[in-house]
Amino acid sequence: MAYSREALIEAVSTQMPDKRWKHTLGVMESSIKLAERYGADPVRAEEAAILHDVAKYWPVDSMKEIIEQNGLSAELLKHDKQLWHAEVGAFVAERDYGIIDPEVIAAIRFHTSGRVGMSLLEKIVCLADYIEPGRDFPGVENIRKLAKISLEEGLVAGFDSTISLLLEKRRIIFPLTVLARNDLVRLLEENK
Amino acid sequence: MAYSREALIEAVSTQMPDKRWKHTLGVMESSIKLAERYGADPVRAEEAAILHDVAKYWPVDSMKEIIEQNGLSAELLKHDKQLWHAEVGAFVAERDYGIIDPEVIAAIRFHTSGRVGMSLLEKIVCLADYIEPGRDFPGVENIRKLAKISLEEGLVAGFDSTISLLLEKRRIIFPLTVLARNDLVRLLEENK
Repeated sequence: MAYSREALIEAVSTQMPDKRWKHTLGVMESSIKLAERYGADPVRAEEAAILHDVAKYWPVDSMKEIIEQNGLSAELLKHDKQLWHAEVGAFVAERDYGIIDPEVIAAIRFHTSGRVGMSLLEKIVCLADYIEPGRDFPGVENIRKLAKISLEEGLVAGFDSTISLLLEKRRIIFPLTVLARNDLVRLLEENK
Repeated sequence: MAYSREALIEAVSTQMPDKRWKHTLGVMESSIKLAERYGADPVRAEEAAILHDVAKYWPVDSMKEIIEQNGLSAELLKHDKQLWHAEVGAFVAERDYGIIDPEVIAAIRFHTSGRVGMSLLEKIVCLADYIEPGRDFPGVENIRKLAKISLEEGLVAGFDSTISLLLEKRRIIFPLTVLARNDLVRLLEENK
């Protein structure tokens, strides 16, 4: 079944603490703004934003089970659990919330990692997740500024801040994020 | 034919400007020291060090031809030319200088990029390349200090400095280096 916008918001908001829901509201707002600025459909951008963190607070075991039993990325299980919710969220968006738009599903799936060849909607939700009004981390103001000039410039700055943080904290860097960042750097270089 | 140590030094030194040969002498010295410290064969470490930059000053076209005609990593051609000399150097070490030891050849091949599952000799030559006495870049003193404690700690710091520099200069990050760095971070975490 497909949910109305209001029913979807109602259902997804119960899946996370208030603080995270507040973050989701911010991502919705920023996704709509970016969609309007860069010529994407704000309704689909908002829909992906509503659902992007739907599985964020699921128990690790449930996420693992969904990834294993449904043939999702096994590679992901070798990496930080923080990455699992995006893949699982995309799966449950379809299974439990009646989302059938493949671009909306992909925007949920790749909102944390990015990937090579990101679509317009994927870029928007991923960047909105970095810059929504509630975010406060070193460099966020620069990413917000760049997001007004170019989606790709904003995302490169976002991915760079993620990679730098992982280096600093001596944590594993998800290779797909590096590939996504390289891909955007190449794209910007070619279009200079 | 196999070269004597002196003949090898004589032949390889003509392949590069004096300044780069001075760097090679530094890598030889550091490789021997690291081999003695960490229980590798100093003779093989020095041999790999002598040859590690043998193709560094080859014309780009010659390197490209060798990579293409000998089925070496085609992936490499999509990346920075700075990376090519390691793969080409390993090939010509065998073809032109009679090196048959696969570990020496691999230490030349992966001295710039690193890889997952680096051998002791590969780690030594790669780290020696970062810390040889002539090197002077931000953070080198920290890498030198760590190199006295652990090959892996030294290499993680080395790779981290490379990745940070590429982020800063907005250049493509070679994915294998990220995988090599992740692999060492995991190894150090497991052995804590």
